[in-house]
Amino acid sequence: MNVATKIIPSDETPLARLSSMLDTDMKALNTQIIEHMHSPVPLIPQLASYLIAAGGKRIRPLLTLACTAMYEGNMPRAHKLAAAVEFIHTATLLHDDVVDESLQRRGKDTANLVFGNQASVLVGDFLFSRAFQLMTADGNLNILEILSKASAIIAEGEVMQLAAIGNLDTNMKSYIQVIESKTAALFAAACEVGPVIAGTTPKEVKAMHDYGLNMGIAFQIADDALDYDAQQEELGKTVGDEFREGKITAPVLIALEKASAEEQKFWKRTLHDRNFENNDLKTAQDILKQHQAITKSLALAENYGEKAQRALKNAPEHEIKKQLDALISYAIYRKT
Amino acid sequence: MNVATKIIPSDETPLARLSSMLDTDMKALNTQIIEHMHSPVPLIPQLASYLIAAGGKRIRPLLTLACTAMYEGNMPRAHKLAAAVEFIHTATLLHDDVVDESLQRRGKDTANLVFGNQASVLVGDFLFSRAFQLMTADGNLNILEILSKASAIIAEGEVMQLAAIGNLDTNMKSYIQVIESKTAALFAAACEVGPVIAGTTPKEVKAMHDYGLNMGIAFQIADDALDYDAQQEELGKTVGDEFREGKITAPVLIALEKASAEEQKFWKRTLHDRNFENNDLKTAQDILKQHQAITKSLALAENYGEKAQRALKNAPEHEIKKQLDALISYAIYRKT
Repeated sequence: MNVATKIIPSDETPLARLSSMLDTDMKALNTQIIEHMHSPVPLIPQLASYLIAAGGKRIRPLLTLACTAMYEGNMPRAHKLAAAVEFIHTATLLHDDVVDESLQRRGKDTANLVFGNQASVLVGDFLFSRAFQLMTADGNLNILEILSKASAIIAEGEVMQLAAIGNLDTNMKSYIQVIESKTAALFAAACEVGPVIAGTTPKEVKAMHDYGLNMGIAFQIADDALDYDAQQEELGKTVGDEFREGKITAPVLIALEKASAEEQKFWKRTLHDRNFENNDLKTAQDILKQHQAITKSLALAENYGEKAQRALKNAPEHEIKKQLDALISYAIYRKT
Repeated sequence: MNVATKIIPSDETPLARLSSMLDTDMKALNTQIIEHMHSPVPLIPQLASYLIAAGGKRIRPLLTLACTAMYEGNMPRAHKLAAAVEFIHTATLLHDDVVDESLQRRGKDTANLVFGNQASVLVGDFLFSRAFQLMTADGNLNILEILSKASAIIAEGEVMQLAAIGNLDTNMKSYIQVIESKTAALFAAACEVGPVIAGTTPKEVKAMHDYGLNMGIAFQIADDALDYDAQQEELGKTVGDEFREGKITAPVLIALEKASAEEQKFWKRTLHDRNFENNDLKTAQDILKQHQAITKSLALAENYGEKAQRALKNAPEHEIKKQLDALISYAIYRKT
């Protein structure tokens, strides 16, 4: 991977460039999102737009748009299906924040905090159903299969993660399995939808699946590194959230491998027993630094990034392809 | 409606007769349910089977089987689609029990109590996704449309109900709208799927939709009456649950219409302020009795039951049709 791409000026990220290249489509996507989160029950669009308007990166629907455009598929179909992808993602965020009792998301109080857990669960269900209505209206059974399977896998990943909380015997393999399920499966599906819309060969569909899957894994490893490494103001969610929730992520697994007896006691008290003292986050950060655990996590993310790059080589030459390539480094080295 | 049908010996209900007529299909349904709730993540089938094995009435999937058989549709398809219907229903139960903080369901501690809210939310999401995988594998877009629309409407109904909690200005019209959405929409969809599988005319599909919708409304009104009227041991859930949750249901709306100033104060303190004292449930039951609110609720349910009966007249002559007719009274006068 080119070292030069590691320095990302915040005003000109590959994400921003891709969004700007697909500006008309991103606007059409936004129209679809607003139109389809409508309901005669006012609380539904209120809560949904609270989260959606908070301005996530929209990376998943952007991938659907980009992959469709790159294969010259029908863009009006992509706008609707990208909205379905974003609804599935939003539904999982709403439910995750309830499950994790999170307080901050995208720099704002979480929906569960503002509207209550109950409304968050139910509006998540609504968005999930609405996503399937959008896919059904599109009428392509392959796409329904891809996204319904991804949804089931996401739920499996979340349950796996829940069962693994505080378990210091978690290994890197099962960690990767969790993030592949909870995060990367939807990245893969979002990418795959593009060539399916365009009616390309199974080989090309598989290539975009592999691109999305591996970038998704890299993206989530980077996310888990950011949980210990980010600046609070930039991140938009609380630094150390995963730590306080007892999630055993890549940096921790790397640090655990070489942990001294004292460090092992520290991780047990914090991640396993969830018995926190002041400064524990700082101590965790210091231990991770000593073991170069953030750097090593990002190196692991790079391995997956390289797989994504190789898969992308199968795509046709296109201006978008260059940005999708650059997006891999962005996914790993972003600060938010 | 025939008065004779109002007395229902518990060992020989129309539900039991219909199940026994469709015994082979109910067994095939059970096989599909067990097979498709499987996941490599053990907690998923554990939690799902905890609720599913607790033995609900399976009335919704039974309706799908019965309506398919009555129109002589393909039964193996019905087994899978009935499993999808039951998964959607189970997902909503899991999420409802989290939302309502319920303690008892089907005579057992609720899944949220045993496995935690987090697992209940996520396993609900899994079952919901799995339902769409089953429908997608079936491949009929009409059915996908019917069930994805019903799922969105259920969520809307639940959110409406949440927003109406403790609101003593709720009127009968908005109450009916809530129960039509949260309960009857899935009854309607479950019935509609039968003639769609059989490839009948839109008129027949509409008839079964109307049968299911109106019976579903009657069923839910009866449910809300049972909340004040049932014997704890028979009901399998806690009597007075809706009362303690501040839900404004048919019996309460009927009693509110003629409430004395003192009774109004009582309903305000309990349902609106949720400030409960010992014996409040008993007092509520006494007030309802005085206003004949249970009897009047069941009379209201009968109005919908009659609509269901009229819709059913469009169905072909069949032994199953007789049982579907008898099921209407059962839905209204059951004790559990």
